[in-house]
Amino acid sequence: MDLVNLVIIIACVSLFYALFLFVKVKSQSAGNERMQEISSKIREGAIVYLKRQYKSVSIFFGTIFLIMIALSFCGIIGKFMPYSFLLGGLLSGISGYIGMRMATMANVRTTEAARKSLVKALDISFSAGSIIGFVVVGVGLSGIGICYYLLKQHLIHMDTAYNIESILGEVITNLLTFGMGVSAMSLFARVGGGIFTKAADVGADLVGKIEMGIPEDDPKNPAVIADNVGDNVGDVAGMGADLFESYVNSIISCSALALGSGFGESGVILPFLLAAVGIVASIIGSFFVKTREDAGQPQLLFTLRKGIYLSNILMCVFSFFLIKNIFPNNLNLFFSIFFGQICGMAIGYCTEYFTSSAYRPTKELSRSTKTGAGTVVISGLSLGMLSAFLPVIIVSACILISFFSSGGRIVTDFQIFSKGLYGISLAAVGMLSTLGITVATDAYGPIADNAGGIAEMSGLTEEVRKRTDMLDSLGNTTAATGKGFAIGSAGLTSLALVAAYINQAKMINPSQIFDLSIINPCVLIGLFVGASLPFLFSAFTMSSVGKAAMDVVCEVRRQFKEIKGLMEGKADPDYQSCVDICTKASVRQMLVPALIGVVSPLAMSLFLGVSGVSGMLVGATVSGAVLALTMSNAGGAWDNSKKYIESGHFGGKKSENHKAAVVGDTVGDPFKDTSGPAINILIKLLAMVSIVFVSIAVSGSLF
Amino acid sequence: MDLVNLVIIIACVSLFYALFLFVKVKSQSAGNERMQEISSKIREGAIVYLKRQYKSVSIFFGTIFLIMIALSFCGIIGKFMPYSFLLGGLLSGISGYIGMRMATMANVRTTEAARKSLVKALDISFSAGSIIGFVVVGVGLSGIGICYYLLKQHLIHMDTAYNIESILGEVITNLLTFGMGVSAMSLFARVGGGIFTKAADVGADLVGKIEMGIPEDDPKNPAVIADNVGDNVGDVAGMGADLFESYVNSIISCSALALGSGFGESGVILPFLLAAVGIVASIIGSFFVKTREDAGQPQLLFTLRKGIYLSNILMCVFSFFLIKNIFPNNLNLFFSIFFGQICGMAIGYCTEYFTSSAYRPTKELSRSTKTGAGTVVISGLSLGMLSAFLPVIIVSACILISFFSSGGRIVTDFQIFSKGLYGISLAAVGMLSTLGITVATDAYGPIADNAGGIAEMSGLTEEVRKRTDMLDSLGNTTAATGKGFAIGSAGLTSLALVAAYINQAKMINPSQIFDLSIINPCVLIGLFVGASLPFLFSAFTMSSVGKAAMDVVCEVRRQFKEIKGLMEGKADPDYQSCVDICTKASVRQMLVPALIGVVSPLAMSLFLGVSGVSGMLVGATVSGAVLALTMSNAGGAWDNSKKYIESGHFGGKKSENHKAAVVGDTVGDPFKDTSGPAINILIKLLAMVSIVFVSIAVSGSLF
Repeated sequence: MDLVNLVIIIACVSLFYALFLFVKVKSQSAGNERMQEISSKIREGAIVYLKRQYKSVSIFFGTIFLIMIALSFCGIIGKFMPYSFLLGGLLSGISGYIGMRMATMANVRTTEAARKSLVKALDISFSAGSIIGFVVVGVGLSGIGICYYLLKQHLIHMDTAYNIESILGEVITNLLTFGMGVSAMSLFARVGGGIFTKAADVGADLVGKIEMGIPEDDPKNPAVIADNVGDNVGDVAGMGADLFESYVNSIISCSALALGSGFGESGVILPFLLAAVGIVASIIGSFFVKTREDAGQPQLLFTLRKGIYLSNILMCVFSFFLIKNIFPNNLNLFFSIFFGQICGMAIGYCTEYFTSSAYRPTKELSRSTKTGAGTVVISGLSLGMLSAFLPVIIVSACILISFFSSGGRIVTDFQIFSKGLYGISLAAVGMLSTLGITVATDAYGPIADNAGGIAEMSGLTEEVRKRTDMLDSLGNTTAATGKGFAIGSAGLTSLALVAAYINQAKMINPSQIFDLSIINPCVLIGLFVGASLPFLFSAFTMSSVGKAAMDVVCEVRRQFKEIKGLMEGKADPDYQSCVDICTKASVRQMLVPALIGVVSPLAMSLFLGVSGVSGMLVGATVSGAVLALTMSNAGGAWDNSKKYIESGHFGGKKSENHKAAVVGDTVGDPFKDTSGPAINILIKLLAMVSIVFVSIAVSGSLF
Repeated sequence: MDLVNLVIIIACVSLFYALFLFVKVKSQSAGNERMQEISSKIREGAIVYLKRQYKSVSIFFGTIFLIMIALSFCGIIGKFMPYSFLLGGLLSGISGYIGMRMATMANVRTTEAARKSLVKALDISFSAGSIIGFVVVGVGLSGIGICYYLLKQHLIHMDTAYNIESILGEVITNLLTFGMGVSAMSLFARVGGGIFTKAADVGADLVGKIEMGIPEDDPKNPAVIADNVGDNVGDVAGMGADLFESYVNSIISCSALALGSGFGESGVILPFLLAAVGIVASIIGSFFVKTREDAGQPQLLFTLRKGIYLSNILMCVFSFFLIKNIFPNNLNLFFSIFFGQICGMAIGYCTEYFTSSAYRPTKELSRSTKTGAGTVVISGLSLGMLSAFLPVIIVSACILISFFSSGGRIVTDFQIFSKGLYGISLAAVGMLSTLGITVATDAYGPIADNAGGIAEMSGLTEEVRKRTDMLDSLGNTTAATGKGFAIGSAGLTSLALVAAYINQAKMINPSQIFDLSIINPCVLIGLFVGASLPFLFSAFTMSSVGKAAMDVVCEVRRQFKEIKGLMEGKADPDYQSCVDICTKASVRQMLVPALIGVVSPLAMSLFLGVSGVSGMLVGATVSGAVLALTMSNAGGAWDNSKKYIESGHFGGKKSENHKAAVVGDTVGDPFKDTSGPAINILIKLLAMVSIVFVSIAVSGSLF
């Protein structure tokens, strides 16, 4: 049997497992009328948003598709590539949509479950998270597998000479184009969702919490529904699309390097197989996430960790036997995968250390609230910048180890050199292979958060809210692991993509020598411009959040002023208007940042050719990784330091210290949920666009 | 006559001109008793600080010196190098000390002059600024010139074979070591001064302005003297040392590339000569800075700009004739210099556009105060990140143009390739050649600021304060030009230093081929680690400011609480204790950031050798330049947006908007005066240390 069929089957198993979980969650009670009413408002808001977003995005995709069709007629790109691009975007969109539907279905059921017990609430929210996780990996892997299988079969039938190398080359080019579609769609989902959720959150907090002094999720706050919609479209759909992208592109970039490094067809499908056994490992691991009713924070954390650890240990074992069967003479490849997993976890620990209020950095940050908002912001930024260093060292170690253990040597023979690059990309696949369960532990957090919001708005007892809060705050810690995997893999994947880019350029014009020395002025300029792109991108995304938030703030203030009896609870606020403002603002503002990812590789290709583009990709990767780590971790630390104060430290809620901490959290919101994670997608989108349009750089550049 | 003698003579002319201005300023009246008393307190504080700083620094320098002596005995480095290192540090320290003494002498005289007229006040403060400017360039150029002359003569006498190339090679190695001393000392001055000034400033503002509601420079504020001391040790001495470093190292890095690119001895001394004619141009330009009594902001700005423009036009003419005489066959070298100047100015304009309240970005930033401190911080960061893009494009254009116009081509022949790198370094020299007048327009600002502080504390009339404020706020605008030159040149100089580094490595082991391709994992890791270093450095410097500021805040709060009658003006605060806290904190905290600059090149040399170090230097340059631009410009914009609100927009002083703007300004303080500008020095220090200890990387590395 063709091994790719096995991959497709396992991907389908993942989807069926998700379906099974769906039936289970769906059958739960959705609570009383008030709860269902609120939940349906949230769901409707999210659906309206996604509809509008997909409408705008489809214009973008349509335009690029038409351009690609034109280019394929001119012979600049392959004839299947426009469709691969479209398919990638479509699948990413579908997985985001399913994620959002699952989250909005599960939130109210989690609330209802939390009325009964903590065990039940964890079960429902984690099951819903698992649905999202297994949909992400299932859709991703089956997409890649089917794409690969069909194209290969078709080309074999077409090509009478039957040259497997050239056929695989064309298949891979199409997979990379598929990856470009995924990156583009995911960037939209992450940026759009991020702007929505943070605009609503900032707007709700600034006026509600600080100015009017009402608690979080108070139904009197006009932005409260928008805030909860945001959790679903940003923290669930956006995050899902983000990790979908990391997953798919780590696999594709690894396949793309297999031929150039002499690993042949087995090397091409090895990442598929790794992903497939990773799914099996994740499913088994997820069975072990169960807890006792009297569980405290530590036990809950242990429960979740147990699932993740078990999956990773299983993955280790599976991957060893996989390598032993496929590459019995290259057993060292296993170490690339193994160290990828280790590094992902290590980065996760760093993230946790710097962002959890259980450790010194965030405690110190909380202490800095004593001297006001200014010092909180300074300390948080400094914490974020500091936190980026260790992960960089870890990724560096991973690069070095996986390069050499896969047989790479720093020699002029490009094939031997490329073996090392293949190893680097394997490490990224290893890191992300257990994504199913990682997403589950990541996604259940916002679901629990939403459940808490619904509990608050429906006026349920304190007990319910306490249970959901416990799940939510734990989600922040486990999400750190997910972020570690996402950021670490982004660095490795995007380096692999640079190598894939150079491979593709060499394929187009084998006689041309590309000078990639770092003192070549074209490479240098590329590095400079590349390093500035993540900053430019963050500038746009953050100012979008700022602008959208300002609109929300003005609207909420207006409602408090104009709607008589609102503060006394005698009149209802107009939730819909806030949702509308967020929707419009985020859909409008997501375009420019996305264009950066498409336009800059094309411009660089035209001006400085392959060496300029390579420099730009590396520059964007290194500065982007550091900036993303800085922003994500600073944001996480601010968030947790605010929660730490709210739990009664340094004066507790409503103190001056708390106000200062809220300012830090406000700054951190776009950091950790809009700009920071989207940078990871940006750097891969840059690479994907460069690869797809590589012929422009090879033959059409100015210098 | 040897042309180097001419260079030394012109450098001395610069010093004599400074002496002439000193006599003129010194002869002015120092005002009434109260003014003199305050002024002497500021001076004493500054002297105490510098003494302590120099004591700590001398331990650092002593240690490195001894290590270098040991290494020179082992033959790893040359025998004159330890002394060159020491001399560089000494001269940088001297120029900082003189700058500070001049500023503390001139501040009170400017206040006194402002009691009479604006013309007089501009005259005194600008003269004092000019003293600092011409001392910086005079000391710098004479140091290089004398060092070069003496070493060359000595080596000619020693070397009986008289091989001019190898003699010049050794001289240049020593000049580079001299440059390392300059960088190290300047980093200490910038970081230490930056921590001092911002801790005092933040401390004074947070408690005085926000909590107690007293105006800036109110003598009731216990941190007010420390704040004014800070202006002198940070904004004057620190800034002076910073630009001293840029100036000296742009010249040295250019000389270092001359031999490898075939420009010979004339190429080595060309940058000296350019600097010399730049001094002449600056002196002439400075004569034209005069204004009328009824001058408004626009006329004043025009007056200052007239001086800068005139100097630059003269510089253009001079440099053209210089090139025509020295390199009649390479007239295109002129374009490298010319475009260097143009780019410096263009970056200055960008800075001005993004940071001056006359333009949209800062106005928009001021508007964002309406929704509180959180959005101000988000908008400011986003503004800063956006502002970095255009300068990067300008520097990129400058790299491209100066590379090709100096005869460089992207070919494997390293000499032809190096011609281009020499051109890039010439552009940096061109940018900084008129530094004399640039420093003058940069340094007069803090002097006027101090003069205003003295006026406020001595209870002089509103009229006096208004005049000094006018000069001060103008200083912010002209300082933008200075920053443009500093940042632009830092990027170019540090690229030149990377090239110099590779040259030196090749000299040590000509047979070894260094793989500098960006997909070499050692280079990649270097780039990754290098990109994270500016963030790590900023993390430490910012947290230092945060910690020191917190100490000041607690002390000021304590005094307001414990000293009876302080708020009513019946009792005097204890100024000295705040000065002490700042001094101790800054001296203690400046060590770790400086160690980053020394330790990381050594560690990288040991681990990954020449390719790792090269990657690290380039990574630090590109991410550092972008981060420095972001931080400096965000800080400038916050500062000016606060001033804009204070001048009556968006609610004016004491409004909620103003409070939000003050938070932004507080965050911006360490951005623009501590971390941001110090990054420029860091990236050059990294390169200098790498170059001096290059033999470790060539022969002693692990990979």
